[in-house]
Amino acid sequence: MNTLGQNLTLTTFGESHGPAIGGVLDGFPSGITVDTEYVRECMQRRRPGQSTVTTGRQEQDEVEFLSGLLDGVSTGAPIAFIIRNTDHHSSDYDELKELFRPSHADYAWEQRYGIRDWRGGGRSSARVTAPICVAGALATLAFGKILPGLKIKAFTSQIGPYSTDPAKDMEYAGVNVETNAVRCPDEQLASKMEDYIKDLRKEQDSTGGCVTCIVEGLPAGIGNPVFDKLEASLAKAMLGINACKGFEYGDGFQSASQRGSEHNDAFRMEGGNITTATNHSGGIQGGISNGQPIRFRVAFKPTPTIGQEQNTVTRDGRETTIAAKGRHDPCVVPRAVPVVESLTALVILDQYLSSK
Amino acid sequence: MNTLGQNLTLTTFGESHGPAIGGVLDGFPSGITVDTEYVRECMQRRRPGQSTVTTGRQEQDEVEFLSGLLDGVSTGAPIAFIIRNTDHHSSDYDELKELFRPSHADYAWEQRYGIRDWRGGGRSSARVTAPICVAGALATLAFGKILPGLKIKAFTSQIGPYSTDPAKDMEYAGVNVETNAVRCPDEQLASKMEDYIKDLRKEQDSTGGCVTCIVEGLPAGIGNPVFDKLEASLAKAMLGINACKGFEYGDGFQSASQRGSEHNDAFRMEGGNITTATNHSGGIQGGISNGQPIRFRVAFKPTPTIGQEQNTVTRDGRETTIAAKGRHDPCVVPRAVPVVESLTALVILDQYLSSK
Amino acid sequence: MNTLGQNLTLTTFGESHGPAIGGVLDGFPSGITVDTEYVRECMQRRRPGQSTVTTGRQEQDEVEFLSGLLDGVSTGAPIAFIIRNTDHHSSDYDELKELFRPSHADYAWEQRYGIRDWRGGGRSSARVTAPICVAGALATLAFGKILPGLKIKAFTSQIGPYSTDPAKDMEYAGVNVETNAVRCPDEQLASKMEDYIKDLRKEQDSTGGCVTCIVEGLPAGIGNPVFDKLEASLAKAMLGINACKGFEYGDGFQSASQRGSEHNDAFRMEGGNITTATNHSGGIQGGISNGQPIRFRVAFKPTPTIGQEQNTVTRDGRETTIAAKGRHDPCVVPRAVPVVESLTALVILDQYLSSK
Amino acid sequence: MNTLGQNLTLTTFGESHGPAIGGVLDGFPSGITVDTEYVRECMQRRRPGQSTVTTGRQEQDEVEFLSGLLDGVSTGAPIAFIIRNTDHHSSDYDELKELFRPSHADYAWEQRYGIRDWRGGGRSSARVTAPICVAGALATLAFGKILPGLKIKAFTSQIGPYSTDPAKDMEYAGVNVETNAVRCPDEQLASKMEDYIKDLRKEQDSTGGCVTCIVEGLPAGIGNPVFDKLEASLAKAMLGINACKGFEYGDGFQSASQRGSEHNDAFRMEGGNITTATNHSGGIQGGISNGQPIRFRVAFKPTPTIGQEQNTVTRDGRETTIAAKGRHDPCVVPRAVPVVESLTALVILDQYLSSK
Repeated sequence: MNTLGQNLTLTTFGESHGPAIGGVLDGFPSGITVDTEYVRECMQRRRPGQSTVTTGRQEQDEVEFLSGLLDGVSTGAPIAFIIRNTDHHSSDYDELKELFRPSHADYAWEQRYGIRDWRGGGRSSARVTAPICVAGALATLAFGKILPGLKIKAFTSQIGPYSTDPAKDMEYAGVNVETNAVRCPDEQLASKMEDYIKDLRKEQDSTGGCVTCIVEGLPAGIGNPVFDKLEASLAKAMLGINACKGFEYGDGFQSASQRGSEHNDAFRMEGGNITTATNHSGGIQGGISNGQPIRFRVAFKPTPTIGQEQNTVTRDGRETTIAAKGRHDPCVVPRAVPVVESLTALVILDQYLSSK
Repeated sequence: MNTLGQNLTLTTFGESHGPAIGGVLDGFPSGITVDTEYVRECMQRRRPGQSTVTTGRQEQDEVEFLSGLLDGVSTGAPIAFIIRNTDHHSSDYDELKELFRPSHADYAWEQRYGIRDWRGGGRSSARVTAPICVAGALATLAFGKILPGLKIKAFTSQIGPYSTDPAKDMEYAGVNVETNAVRCPDEQLASKMEDYIKDLRKEQDSTGGCVTCIVEGLPAGIGNPVFDKLEASLAKAMLGINACKGFEYGDGFQSASQRGSEHNDAFRMEGGNITTATNHSGGIQGGISNGQPIRFRVAFKPTPTIGQEQNTVTRDGRETTIAAKGRHDPCVVPRAVPVVESLTALVILDQYLSSK
Repeated sequence: MNTLGQNLTLTTFGESHGPAIGGVLDGFPSGITVDTEYVRECMQRRRPGQSTVTTGRQEQDEVEFLSGLLDGVSTGAPIAFIIRNTDHHSSDYDELKELFRPSHADYAWEQRYGIRDWRGGGRSSARVTAPICVAGALATLAFGKILPGLKIKAFTSQIGPYSTDPAKDMEYAGVNVETNAVRCPDEQLASKMEDYIKDLRKEQDSTGGCVTCIVEGLPAGIGNPVFDKLEASLAKAMLGINACKGFEYGDGFQSASQRGSEHNDAFRMEGGNITTATNHSGGIQGGISNGQPIRFRVAFKPTPTIGQEQNTVTRDGRETTIAAKGRHDPCVVPRAVPVVESLTALVILDQYLSSK
Repeated sequence: MNTLGQNLTLTTFGESHGPAIGGVLDGFPSGITVDTEYVRECMQRRRPGQSTVTTGRQEQDEVEFLSGLLDGVSTGAPIAFIIRNTDHHSSDYDELKELFRPSHADYAWEQRYGIRDWRGGGRSSARVTAPICVAGALATLAFGKILPGLKIKAFTSQIGPYSTDPAKDMEYAGVNVETNAVRCPDEQLASKMEDYIKDLRKEQDSTGGCVTCIVEGLPAGIGNPVFDKLEASLAKAMLGINACKGFEYGDGFQSASQRGSEHNDAFRMEGGNITTATNHSGGIQGGISNGQPIRFRVAFKPTPTIGQEQNTVTRDGRETTIAAKGRHDPCVVPRAVPVVESLTALVILDQYLSSK
């Protein structure tokens, strides 16, 4: 179903080329002042076309709030909002009506529902992440009031062959990544990533990448064993992002080759408080936050839409080829950064509300 | 909360050293004959103490079914079952009452609830996975009737420095892994893993590892966009297993360094059916199965319980040290194999029932 | 929360005087052709101002579909729709800002959320039932395809002192009630009810009433024990309607004074099929439909908004009086008829989808 | 499904003649001391065989707690408990295997699941309410700590032709009803009810009745609009009780014949606090408690099991007759009193936890 969360629920709707996309955020705390300009900025961060690197469809997105606010303050009623689809030249997609694009959801969706919205990916378009960013901005505003110390920061940690050093994750969490087009906290690496993407555009190809996210300031004791663990809820949310192929937290897959004596985080006292000497665990034990920063990484596959010719089949079972026309975004990873932050804010607010 | 699933729900309960652990499986199809001996065997696969490699607590687990069956056939009513805890020498854990074990859930749980069951990890013990295996066995029996071609197979793909070749995953899916103590389909590698674990036992240390799972025979069209994607539901279930640190499917984190031209799975016709030339996607597109085998990998951290002395603190904030006494399992990964299979069966049956 | 249902979920949003009200219907079957004109008509049935009897605010409601449809056919994606609020003279309600209207939700809501949308009842306005009627029309269209024999029919069975004869319920289910302003199947009684309402308008007073609903054509075997019984789900949905005070099915409260020998529905054979001689049960046994018509009745209190002067208090605890200005609807019962039908369609479709 | 609640969930399981019945209570607050003797007494109140009036099967029920408690204190982990079925002479029911008892769930269940547990009603037996009473006792203990002023009191308000005066409901809430076998607060009426039941037993017949419930001490502001209203949640829970045919709160069905000027509860000040002059509303407005006592009434049909001969059919469609053998309880209403109290405690604790 199209609903995320338990006590704080986000229901999203909308297809790439329908009249509008949007969402309903229910269970949101009352009394939160909603700075709509801030929300708009958060949402704009995920849109394509912001630079020479991530060019694509130009979305002049404006969010309209329909309910749940009185004079800009949340009332406890569900907050509904919509974003009109303005740039919907469905005819551009006419040829997609009768064939399945490789590694897109076209075929699977049609097997599931017997029908699919073939216009620009329909419900499977990356555009469906826009409402997530609106809701994430609202969750962030709520934290500003109920847990002011909380800081959620994501950044691009890998694009193709270029990766940041995981040892510097906490340092990177303090860097403004909006200064470069790929949202990488290491400027030199960012420059290489940008060049790589430009080359891929010329080659009509695309690349995958990773986003790392750090949550600081979450107190210990937030989370719900056994099946709604904090990390499990984060994993579920992240795997819901288009093109996501993996999730790891703390030392993640690296833990598989570690020894216990190396991985364990020894407890110690610091200023009268219990803390840990290291944070291989990534801030969560047994599904519950332990007061240390939460650290996780999300992997994305390369954008499946490429200009190169690929083999595929038609709906009626005829082999053919396809080559995407026009300009395509060779790398969605920088645009996933605000989506990861937004989902993190939503998941943590939901768990926070149920752990109080 | 302690419930997994939407239409097929598993609610588990029980602590390591309470009277019993168990579960309630609701939404299970009626008319399924339950071979209790098969269920018992499935559950026994996850228990420690099966070999010289994975020795530890001897659990003589017997599952008792309390409801939902009439003459061994499911009636559609919830199936409840319990496993008595027989080997509970709580006094062994007396010293744990007042201190927090490094990288265990002790501290986080106490911050969450103000109280914790300190006896053997309580609700955070690996023992809580036993009911999952019972329920997974039931789901497998249901598939035997409603989707006989389905085959779910997991195996150990990494222990410490030793990893299987991902290119052979599909081949390994056909191998019986019960022939060696580490459940690795490559016998030579299995031997090295066993030696490695024996060495770690001597060193009073532990190791992490990975489990790979392959699902064959699932038809296209099973899954639910946008927030209940098949891969998201699998990720959530896996991250709920004790010590799990990561989940990836298809090419997973490797996708981050790939190009679209390399990662995309071209469609082609085969015997009149639509199929794909490769399976980098891991059998899922847009949250819905595409008819190809589902392939994913799960990472586990090293067992936090080790015999070496570690720094820690007491509940009242005094620094101290701890060294686990007695024999400890240096590697839980082989025991996680049946748990991964069980959760996969449960998640897929749930999604199958809601996708029909 | 603002979501109804399990597999078919309706999330509604919107306040009386915000920008719009609307809903998201998720889990709706794909492949259903949506006749938007039919939907509009269904929604219009619940609006006030249709006759001299039920005059009030003139709502020129138009429903706009935002998602989930492709060329008018449902795709399986969530169907979102909105209805703009056009007639929102918030200033009319300025005096309500600082006091609590008797038997309205003003006070309770403010105690719950610390803030309330005082404009026209906000989220507690009867206007929030409009999206229910839109969703109910969609559910009815779905039944037209998947269970064509199903017929859901509600009518006004009581207004103040005037009641229809319960013994004629099944006969009334076949009568077109749109021929009179109160939607009562007995035209003579309807006339008396209309006169009664006209008198109440003069007296600045209001009245309660009842709606009876009959469902024919539902096969046996639809429903879910133990806590999601068909009747329990219907009761929950009905009690969610504004001003609803009670729900009974079959012989309802009358059963309390009956004997078993009188109430029991004896089974008998008819044309080779199992049926019952009577239907005191109201078509449901043990939470599951038994193939007989489902029959239930819903009670509504008198509209709390009246022109007579009433005692009340201000937000800062000062005793005062209030008398509603302008024209008010002395009886909402006729308008509740389509809402009862809509919720019935939604609940039964949800249970049907989960009972297949 | 067999789960009640959102944040506090009760999952029940078990059939009349299986090995055991029981439940899992999840989301229960930690730190609550569980007086198991109190719980046992609460559960015993619902069992048959307590007097000459409500004789029937002798159940020597003992509840065993399996999890969620440490030295008698709740830990926040799910609390599982079972009650063994000792008196299960399944052979008594052999003849029921092949026919459907009138107004029992036999036929509907078999249509739903294709199989039914015919032994003593299986999952549809009144025995399934025992776990509800255990969980209700736990909820009551929790309120003892977190909301000590809360008082939930139910009593028998009607049996057949004998009804208590609704005007005295609040007075009756203070009366100990355990002094008579029918749990009626009016001793004279109780005596008539007892005689009536004795007569019915002789006539091999049964009777319906009503239970009224009063909740005092619930502060204003507890509840959740729009679809999870407090009254809607109560209605759903009550309609889940075996044999329940109706729910009304406040003036209920009587409201249908009232005028607004008569029904509205005027606000007034009392000792500096906002209160209402009357309580026709029954303590809830717009789905949220308003600080006044909550008052509702639940109707039960006559026990369908009677000794008189009734017409029915066999599974293979042959008309026959049935007459229940042995002693039968002609009236379950007194036994429903503790069930109503228990469900009320569970619903209100759930809503309380989510409204804080």
